[in-house]
Amino acid sequence: MNKNNFPWETGFTLDFDLVSGLSEKGVSTKRYLSQMKGFYYDSEAEAKLLESDPMVYEFYELNCPEVSGDLAFGTTIVYPGKVNDEYYMTKGHFHVILDTAEVYYTLSGRGILLCESPEGDVKLLEMKPGEAVYVPKRYAHRTINTGNMPLVAFFVFRGDAGHDYGTIEKLGYRTLVVDRDGVPTALPNPKWK
Amino acid sequence: MNKNNFPWETGFTLDFDLVSGLSEKGVSTKRYLSQMKGFYYDSEAEAKLLESDPMVYEFYELNCPEVSGDLAFGTTIVYPGKVNDEYYMTKGHFHVILDTAEVYYTLSGRGILLCESPEGDVKLLEMKPGEAVYVPKRYAHRTINTGNMPLVAFFVFRGDAGHDYGTIEKLGYRTLVVDRDGVPTALPNPKWK
Repeated sequence: MNKNNFPWETGFTLDFDLVSGLSEKGVSTKRYLSQMKGFYYDSEAEAKLLESDPMVYEFYELNCPEVSGDLAFGTTIVYPGKVNDEYYMTKGHFHVILDTAEVYYTLSGRGILLCESPEGDVKLLEMKPGEAVYVPKRYAHRTINTGNMPLVAFFVFRGDAGHDYGTIEKLGYRTLVVDRDGVPTALPNPKWK
Repeated sequence: MNKNNFPWETGFTLDFDLVSGLSEKGVSTKRYLSQMKGFYYDSEAEAKLLESDPMVYEFYELNCPEVSGDLAFGTTIVYPGKVNDEYYMTKGHFHVILDTAEVYYTLSGRGILLCESPEGDVKLLEMKPGEAVYVPKRYAHRTINTGNMPLVAFFVFRGDAGHDYGTIEKLGYRTLVVDRDGVPTALPNPKWK
């Protein structure tokens, strides 16, 4: 359960470990593989891995007021792992208010922020410690862990931006990122509709 | 000169050292004591220190588009030091669009984020490594270094929020933070109008 309850109207502080991204005062939302069935291209490898149902990522949802003057923030932690050769990743989403950006600041780990516009423009932005990433307005975004340790980033977006997961769930991304002999490699997604 | 020029419409990455906050690709704006005359309560101590005109703080102004869907971000670095017993601090400002918040994530150092509403509600929010600070809508905010090393934080606010420095410059803050036997202590500002 998400018990995060903070005084957005008068200000507050909240701890996020600079390496692990975990908070002692905040409660994270956890995403297990069973909650993202069909997101990986290799359905057989996914089915096999579902037997142990690993946690793929977790993030903080702090119940920011859904108004344009507030800012939602927290950390995302994507664990290392693969489904066949496809790296662990977040579901990814568009913002419901499409014309709103998002800022990530990478704290630890290595990865890619995959950004894709409705028209199919694709950007692969590198995540590494100390790298800030600007996700432009209109672009769906997904965090992909291409390394051997948790990929951790602090994020901020407008309180009213909203999450549209459905479009990605239905259509998928145009682009996959897979491990080819140890090198993260972008490929067209065979499942993309 | 501020030569920061980034593709906000299509996304980009930018480095900020996780400890020092400094960027190799970005250019910082520097604030020397001579650019904030009259901000410290002890005018004599200020005048004396002006002979060496130390850099009090620097921050990154990346020329984010001034529209509500974009997010300005960067780091602020406040150097350690005092004018008499008053800690080095930023000028502080309200947002021009008063109803917009700001998020800080403290990377290193110790300090206080002093928040003050137009009605005089005052919040002193603690800054220490790993502490995120939520500056609520409507509150002026100033970063104060109460430690012995640079105070470094990553910040994000709405692209169109705007900076109203004039109100603080004219009226000052209601509250000062000074060193009393090694303890940061809040006092009423004798200069406040």
